Amino acid sequence: MHRIDSTVISPSSTALATLGEFGLIARIASGTRSGAGVVTGIGDDAAVTALSPGMQLLTSTDMLLEDVHFRRRWHDPYRLGRKSLAVSISDIAAMGGIPRWALLSLAIPPDIHLDFVDEFMRGFLAMASEHAVTLIGGDTCSSRSGVTVSVTLLGEQLPEQIIRRSGALPDDDIWVTGTLGDAALGLRLVEGLTVCSSDPREPVVEEAGPLLHRLLDPVPQVIAALALAEAGVATAMIDVSDGILADFGHIAEQSGVGGCLILDDLPLSPDFCSHTARLSTVPYQLVLSGGEDYELCFTAQPACREKIVDCMKKCGIAVTRVGIVTRSPGVTAVNRDGSQHIAQTEGFDHFT
Amino acid sequence: MHRIDSTVISPSSTALATLGEFGLIARIASGTRSGAGVVTGIGDDAAVTALSPGMQLLTSTDMLLEDVHFRRRWHDPYRLGRKSLAVSISDIAAMGGIPRWALLSLAIPPDIHLDFVDEFMRGFLAMASEHAVTLIGGDTCSSRSGVTVSVTLLGEQLPEQIIRRSGALPDDDIWVTGTLGDAALGLRLVEGLTVCSSDPREPVVEEAGPLLHRLLDPVPQVIAALALAEAGVATAMIDVSDGILADFGHIAEQSGVGGCLILDDLPLSPDFCSHTARLSTVPYQLVLSGGEDYELCFTAQPACREKIVDCMKKCGIAVTRVGIVTRSPGVTAVNRDGSQHIAQTEGFDHFT
Repeated sequence: MHRIDSTVISPSSTALATLGEFGLIARIASGTRSGAGVVTGIGDDAAVTALSPGMQLLTSTDMLLEDVHFRRRWHDPYRLGRKSLAVSISDIAAMGGIPRWALLSLAIPPDIHLDFVDEFMRGFLAMASEHAVTLIGGDTCSSRSGVTVSVTLLGEQLPEQIIRRSGALPDDDIWVTGTLGDAALGLRLVEGLTVCSSDPREPVVEEAGPLLHRLLDPVPQVIAALALAEAGVATAMIDVSDGILADFGHIAEQSGVGGCLILDDLPLSPDFCSHTARLSTVPYQLVLSGGEDYELCFTAQPACREKIVDCMKKCGIAVTRVGIVTRSPGVTAVNRDGSQHIAQTEGFDHFT
Repeated sequence: MHRIDSTVISPSSTALATLGEFGLIARIASGTRSGAGVVTGIGDDAAVTALSPGMQLLTSTDMLLEDVHFRRRWHDPYRLGRKSLAVSISDIAAMGGIPRWALLSLAIPPDIHLDFVDEFMRGFLAMASEHAVTLIGGDTCSSRSGVTVSVTLLGEQLPEQIIRRSGALPDDDIWVTGTLGDAALGLRLVEGLTVCSSDPREPVVEEAGPLLHRLLDPVPQVIAALALAEAGVATAMIDVSDGILADFGHIAEQSGVGGCLILDDLPLSPDFCSHTARLSTVPYQLVLSGGEDYELCFTAQPACREKIVDCMKKCGIAVTRVGIVTRSPGVTAVNRDGSQHIAQTEGFDHFT
């Protein structure tokens, strides 16, 4: 795309304006390597790739906007680069797919320091390398207002191993990997928000380190997802990006079922617990609807419990049974003793 | 991606804030249809598609930013929607590829009128329908500053029919479809810029209609590209988005050759000629480096001339021989009589 406006220019000697668009593309391309299935990578009108025999193509895309999804004040460019790819890897993993090829579009204010781009790319390519993903293309342009990142990730999988949202059945167990609520709590601390109305203390960012790291540098659960796909045990799966209440809600809706989550069973990290220990109640809003967990939520028949525990143990991934699928629609979260009862909210919404 | 900032909210009753993110996704998805090769479309963590037997995957992505690539003042949402997809279709076509599946990410200020989104999607889906492209996924989020559009388009082609930038050989002819410079002239008129320094008159937007339409609603040359791919006559190909001087420059660089364009032979439209007739010279800067032509530039052996003319005639596409590939590097544009001589510039650059 040609730019209509030639005024978006900065004279800074360490800024992108000096390097230029083609210099930036060359700089980005220089860090990429050839990868499995890549026939023609960066540098033509389109990338050319070849799927593995018998596999279908999986495609997912995510857009990250400065001051909407992240702040440069607390998101260092290295971890921002990592996360920009990680969120898409998490989507491909949630289908049981093998991540393969990425496209990265960057809109950057022209006065931004080159170090930012270099560190961003170092993080992006480190995440790519960890998951054998090859960067095959993208787009760069100047921005008038902040950094915008758009990533499209292509993956592949055998048709019979792809796991959709739509396969959950009544009486299936609901499972989740890892722990929930850490990133949401980290965000509240770093943004200076109260954890809940009964705890209006000032945040201490330093001590939020491990929680904040969950927010800034999420780990997509690819190994666990591929193990579940190969074992053929999950009836439905999704990644928890908007909170388990909303995301299991998508499984429920697309499977034509409902579900009940047991609040006492939701997995919490030691850091989460120590930070919220002084509160009169566990801030379940963060655990259920905080978002950015990037864990896997999946359903499976009760007969598969042992197999699932073994399978996840082999991957070194913690997994917890947190509820059951119900025939009646709607999702609720309850305490075992009935002392709390939360009905499904709308989950996170970008416009309302 | 979860949003960190809950303040990007508007109370307008006809705005996105009312509909909400999931309402918007449902609204967008409602206009899409199932298409060839689509196994699972919008609504899961990733789309699932199946390539046609023996074909390789082509992938291209483009980002369009408000007030960088377009202005809402003169780009109506219907044609903006069409163009957002057309520029990516043009990229896939330039590889000789068949466009198949699109992903659309939209960042929109929450106070934007719903009519804008509806009209944008009507245009996007009309362009998709004209080229048998299916919308299979995307992302939506609120924006603090203007509309951002990111499109990824997937295509496919048999390996032997894919045309790259790197195959041009010395003494090949250089060809271009259609006419050049119309969109660039239309942009100068609508933006109130002088056409060239010797003609500082005020623009008259109404009379710029056909030129402006080339800018706002470009036609990707898919039929011509697929005919060339099938005929096996083009040694290299690119779409002209940054001006033929820069874009043929990419062919030259990647093929390890140079080229000479004949200024007198560059194809100009009647509208372009009538608008520039009063000038003392043809404003070749617009023709060579104006950008946004979305025509095909390709190279072919002189022995293929008749075949190319026949092939393009069958498609109803005008095609013009505009120069020759040289063994020595560098691209120049000259008049037949030697009265003008333009060496390759850097072409359009987003940051310098």
